[in-house]
Amino acid sequence: MGAIEDLTGELSRLPGIGTKTALRLTYHLLKRPPEDTRRLARALTAVADRVRRCSRCGNLTEADPCELCTNPRRDRTVICVVEEASDVGAIERTGEYRGLYHVLGGRLSPLDGVGPEELNIEALLGRLSGDADGDVTELIIATNPSVEGEATALYLQKLVRPRGVRVTRLARGLPVGGDLEYADGVTIAEALSGRREL
Amino acid sequence: MGAIEDLTGELSRLPGIGTKTALRLTYHLLKRPPEDTRRLARALTAVADRVRRCSRCGNLTEADPCELCTNPRRDRTVICVVEEASDVGAIERTGEYRGLYHVLGGRLSPLDGVGPEELNIEALLGRLSGDADGDVTELIIATNPSVEGEATALYLQKLVRPRGVRVTRLARGLPVGGDLEYADGVTIAEALSGRREL
Repeated sequence: MGAIEDLTGELSRLPGIGTKTALRLTYHLLKRPPEDTRRLARALTAVADRVRRCSRCGNLTEADPCELCTNPRRDRTVICVVEEASDVGAIERTGEYRGLYHVLGGRLSPLDGVGPEELNIEALLGRLSGDADGDVTELIIATNPSVEGEATALYLQKLVRPRGVRVTRLARGLPVGGDLEYADGVTIAEALSGRREL
Repeated sequence: MGAIEDLTGELSRLPGIGTKTALRLTYHLLKRPPEDTRRLARALTAVADRVRRCSRCGNLTEADPCELCTNPRRDRTVICVVEEASDVGAIERTGEYRGLYHVLGGRLSPLDGVGPEELNIEALLGRLSGDADGDVTELIIATNPSVEGEATALYLQKLVRPRGVRVTRLARGLPVGGDLEYADGVTIAEALSGRREL
């Protein structure tokens, strides 16, 4: 039964899905109409084919530049720097932020071999010099409240402050050691409104 | 971002995967090489396109009749009746059974509208009359030890016994490696009444 084992193997490569869960999912997929499974396959292929990084902000998008970068109703004087594209979604869901974003694609983590060159930092500096986004007056650093996230924030602050841009950090309303992606909207909103000068 | 939302929606329709997990999975898929995601999509399509029910035993298979039904090394005098195709895998993994299988595709459950007509029972009776499998001498009923599973076993036993076929049921008792202290009373009572000579 090659196809069944193939699928179980592919599913068990996903995070949080072990061999038993993969098997259970496979049998669930086999019980429902094949068209449902084909639709899931098409959704996966569409994401693999169409979703790219925005060349301006690094967010995941189907259009380049992304909808957030091109939206004329966004405040172009503020850029919120996050680690991952999933963090953009977390902040957008609060409805409290109207500025632009910049996705680093990770955080400084020397132990994992992630230095400044591995992150989307050069493009950020380009944006601050006003080529694309006009006069950015504030940079909100919304990296995760973890050791690496703090180190990344500090690194960015030192890099950016000489340029005369106000650099802020999300307030410590976030549970320390937690993950921005999983924080609830109210907490993120509190952290946004309580942001402090670095 | 239609493609991302589509995929999150499709993933959250799977059992045990809520909106947050679906979102986390989607972003994980977006972080790994697109080719990995295309491979998962192909595995899903292959299962949707190629996996069918075996016309003989009801097991899930790419070849009809399935590998188990056509394997000349299987004991064709014993048929093990299970509820779902996943149960076949569970028994096969023990390596202790060499007979054939019959997958009912469910269990009797009048409250859910599942009567004998909804189950793969007619084909089972056909197999017992010797058309395809020769002389079946024993039917092992391995439906789940739940109320519905027991009712299904009882129904099959009444149906099959007049044909002179030996009908057996998987033993009930304490799970190996379990703890007497935490076993429920019904299980302990079953284990007592089914006790065997050492």
